[in-house]
Amino acid sequence: MLHKRRRQDTAAAAIQTRSASVAQRIEQVLQQALSLGEGPEGPPLLAAAMRHAVFPGGARIRPQLCLAVAGACGDPHPALADAAASAIELLHCASLVHDDLPCFDDAATRRGVPSVHAAFGERLAVLAGDALIVLAFQALAEAARPQTQRLLAPLIALLGRRIGGPSGIVAGQAWECEPRVSLAAYHRAKTGSLFAACTEAGALAAAADPAPWRAFGLCLGEAYQVADDVRDVVATTQALGKPAGRDRDLSRPSSASELGLGGAIDYFDRLVERSIEAIPDCDGATLLRAMVRAESERLVPQDSVRDLALAA
Amino acid sequence: MLHKRRRQDTAAAAIQTRSASVAQRIEQVLQQALSLGEGPEGPPLLAAAMRHAVFPGGARIRPQLCLAVAGACGDPHPALADAAASAIELLHCASLVHDDLPCFDDAATRRGVPSVHAAFGERLAVLAGDALIVLAFQALAEAARPQTQRLLAPLIALLGRRIGGPSGIVAGQAWECEPRVSLAAYHRAKTGSLFAACTEAGALAAAADPAPWRAFGLCLGEAYQVADDVRDVVATTQALGKPAGRDRDLSRPSSASELGLGGAIDYFDRLVERSIEAIPDCDGATLLRAMVRAESERLVPQDSVRDLALAA
Repeated sequence: MLHKRRRQDTAAAAIQTRSASVAQRIEQVLQQALSLGEGPEGPPLLAAAMRHAVFPGGARIRPQLCLAVAGACGDPHPALADAAASAIELLHCASLVHDDLPCFDDAATRRGVPSVHAAFGERLAVLAGDALIVLAFQALAEAARPQTQRLLAPLIALLGRRIGGPSGIVAGQAWECEPRVSLAAYHRAKTGSLFAACTEAGALAAAADPAPWRAFGLCLGEAYQVADDVRDVVATTQALGKPAGRDRDLSRPSSASELGLGGAIDYFDRLVERSIEAIPDCDGATLLRAMVRAESERLVPQDSVRDLALAA
Repeated sequence: MLHKRRRQDTAAAAIQTRSASVAQRIEQVLQQALSLGEGPEGPPLLAAAMRHAVFPGGARIRPQLCLAVAGACGDPHPALADAAASAIELLHCASLVHDDLPCFDDAATRRGVPSVHAAFGERLAVLAGDALIVLAFQALAEAARPQTQRLLAPLIALLGRRIGGPSGIVAGQAWECEPRVSLAAYHRAKTGSLFAACTEAGALAAAADPAPWRAFGLCLGEAYQVADDVRDVVATTQALGKPAGRDRDLSRPSSASELGLGGAIDYFDRLVERSIEAIPDCDGATLLRAMVRAESERLVPQDSVRDLALAA
């Protein structure tokens, strides 16, 4: 499937310019959200642990995706789209803090720095994760205005379904505690559901029907999880910013161990193509397709990783 | 202060009849909420752990208080009041699951049965708590209707402030991780804030101004925390349904250790009186006052505990 991917330099440059301004917007909104959870009357270590979990961030791919879809749908309510995007990132950060806990991955590092429990202790890591989940919904509610209040209930109900049980990211993590699990169900819940939340919430915040956007998000989420499996095998701990080889060490279901490295990369390529085909017709579809291709190249670079897979 | 409390048998009987029907209503709404987080596609152990955290419940004092205030304010939107009450109980249950974790209280029992982490393991306890927090907001959003959607944003923002940082129950628990803490700030955040959420959310769900109801909730919450401290000292593990003497064992700030048992009971009585005085004028004020007196007698029975304090 390698030949299907072409470099699109002009589109990539346009995307980079757009991404830089969107990235700035995302950091600002996250800063505002975090300040809601802080105050002189509060325990300072909790506030510090929450900030440590959110800043500096990773690629912020989820809020970028949410805002990209809102933009593709015309973005009539940018403040609500911002709040939805930041809520999703806060929920993602909360899930990372709890996934890193000693009882799960026991990861000492995350994004190249000590994980929250390594820096602040296990108790503050549990509480910072809890507080970030709460903050996500609170920040979304604070962003509602009279003209957008009818969108708040469907947005919060959507986030609830994509985060909690039976098929949200918490359920995905819970599959690791079950005696039997299918790889597809596990990935769909653990990663796919939050990507689906991004595309659906982006559409909803723009007052568009979220249903046609679900398949795109799910497919992209699965691609992202497969890319993560691939990178877990080939990357060094330094490049990942978290311990490499954890899936194997923890005997966790992984497409790389199930399909082999080359098979996993082929599967990744198929998922990227499938997600591009799943983008609904809209004004911003062309830009969105180019963004997905650029992101897929960032996740699994054609040259380096693929050569490694062929040599294996 | 002991002589200030009188038995009010007639009022108590009326309250008991009312409580029984409200209690049934609360269990039904909690059942409906839990079913939102379950499905055949989900991991069964997570669903079981969530149910274990919520059923059978304790006294359900928080949702009772929320519905009592909604009733006192005319209860024009009972479905929204139900959802707010059940959201608060779900958040309370989530906090108990996480407070019981090995890194905090390491409590093996809760409400007379194994705690969630004792029954399902630490990982599922972390995840069940997370999923219950999410479910609380989701269930509230699912209950919004066109005529009540304007109340959803303030309700969710309120719950966010009373649960998260800087002064919600998560912040309260986080004070246990700080080197220095004032007993008042700790209790206000850890217990008072959720009781304030009950009275404020009950008013809000009835489309009333929540501000005048805050002091009543805060005061009652502090009374409840002091009662908990008193019971932690005098009760047996069997009667509490959780390990007794934990505050002392964990060197946790406690009014009983700070004021002595008799001093703590006097303080409890003063807080009950103060909370009764704080009830705003409304049609249901008389019933509400009687309910508070009945509840205070249940929490710290005049005869048994007070005799013990006098003998000490």
